[in-house]
Amino acid sequence: MPSHISTVQLAKKFDTKNFIIGASVYKQFLWYYVSCLVFRSGLMPSSSVLVFILKCFGAKIGKDVRIKPYIYIKYPWKLTVGNHSWLAECFIENLDEVIIGNNCCISQNATLMTGNHNYKKTSFDLITKPIILENGVWVGANATVCPGVLCKTHSVLTMGAIATKNLEAYSIYSGTPAVKIKDRVID
Amino acid sequence: MPSHISTVQLAKKFDTKNFIIGASVYKQFLWYYVSCLVFRSGLMPSSSVLVFILKCFGAKIGKDVRIKPYIYIKYPWKLTVGNHSWLAECFIENLDEVIIGNNCCISQNATLMTGNHNYKKTSFDLITKPIILENGVWVGANATVCPGVLCKTHSVLTMGAIATKNLEAYSIYSGTPAVKIKDRVID
Amino acid sequence: MPSHISTVQLAKKFDTKNFIIGASVYKQFLWYYVSCLVFRSGLMPSSSVLVFILKCFGAKIGKDVRIKPYIYIKYPWKLTVGNHSWLAECFIENLDEVIIGNNCCISQNATLMTGNHNYKKTSFDLITKPIILENGVWVGANATVCPGVLCKTHSVLTMGAIATKNLEAYSIYSGTPAVKIKDRVID
Repeated sequence: MPSHISTVQLAKKFDTKNFIIGASVYKQFLWYYVSCLVFRSGLMPSSSVLVFILKCFGAKIGKDVRIKPYIYIKYPWKLTVGNHSWLAECFIENLDEVIIGNNCCISQNATLMTGNHNYKKTSFDLITKPIILENGVWVGANATVCPGVLCKTHSVLTMGAIATKNLEAYSIYSGTPAVKIKDRVID
Repeated sequence: MPSHISTVQLAKKFDTKNFIIGASVYKQFLWYYVSCLVFRSGLMPSSSVLVFILKCFGAKIGKDVRIKPYIYIKYPWKLTVGNHSWLAECFIENLDEVIIGNNCCISQNATLMTGNHNYKKTSFDLITKPIILENGVWVGANATVCPGVLCKTHSVLTMGAIATKNLEAYSIYSGTPAVKIKDRVID
Repeated sequence: MPSHISTVQLAKKFDTKNFIIGASVYKQFLWYYVSCLVFRSGLMPSSSVLVFILKCFGAKIGKDVRIKPYIYIKYPWKLTVGNHSWLAECFIENLDEVIIGNNCCISQNATLMTGNHNYKKTSFDLITKPIILENGVWVGANATVCPGVLCKTHSVLTMGAIATKNLEAYSIYSGTPAVKIKDRVID
């Protein structure tokens, strides 16, 4: 390897000047164990109870939202969900804001990932970018939405697809990385 | 957006006339917590015990079947497994029947997904289709089988592949969506 | 189907002559429940405690390593981690040795898979191959490293990518199967 090539140094604290957790250590600690014992354990299957708890921790959630057990949400205080949306057992790594509109569906084992690292820096800085799902979006089972992606209204990410760029409205995306395969026509 | 484009309305009950759970609410409730505490928790590593419990809940399971801890099975009463098959820590969303033959192997974190939604309808109707794995099929780790897919005898879905269509017998499939890459020749 | 085609017979014990677990049944049993109750449950969020326990079970771990809760490690006694590396909630199926260098990062829900089966044999023999990550490697969220793969220094496997072959040094890989998309240039 040429000697001029730099190496990453994870020992150094990475730059987090653009990253704010947004909750006290007490709130973080309490949420950690509520998430562990009540949400990820699956012990509480009632959507109403799960929604209530999320709101207590600062989530903004509309009416008639269904939350399934076993769901993972990093920080409820960085989560917004509109009305009539469904969140199955999915993985929401919302280091940054995740904003979900009305009538959205996030299926089983889908991932919404807001965190990235700057692999061009030796300090491997954390980079976070929000994810926005507009109304009527469907993120299919095992699918992944990458940091900063905007899924425009009524876009669909099919099973296992990986959205690395914004999704156009009323469009179906498939593959890794996801590409548009057809329009979504709704009767 | 043109005003003539329809929007989904998840508030409306979706059409479930073709979907029958197939168990009383008491049985569903009991299975939910047995699944949570005994299966998904990993607390019971004995395959024999797991098989016995699944049979009590209506699964049809042949002889010498090995079930690993941490497995997720939505409805045991919609599961059929032949003889000498192995089910690792996988995710079986069997809203519809899942029928697994003899000498099959389902590897770690594989998904068998029988549920879909009609994204062409404003009501986002649930669509379920059975999955059938014939004898000798191997679904690799992290691989996904989509609703309605028939995996013919001795087909192989490699790691992380997504089967959106039927798999031919004695054939190896890879990628997303999965395509045939070669024949499976067994000595 | 032609009658001359062989069928797999999982009832037969598969050939494990090249596979050694490397721990007594007592140690395996104890680790199983420690992994279940302390690691996979998420109940212990302290990296220092997790590292300490892994070392007690034979893992070789350098200084300043961060281990996240919910991690899965099959056999700690087959795990080596250098200094200043980060292991998030990932899935390390180390039936064979997994060797991770300095300043590596394994992100959320990544899979390091050392086990395979010989699908060309009726006995479906287990095949295990080690995985080696050299210094500075990043395995992204939901990405998978297949058995026997060597990820050379400072290679990157992007989100959801599947590494089926060795990764070149200072290179970024994407897709399934993963292909090189560009060089990794570090300032």
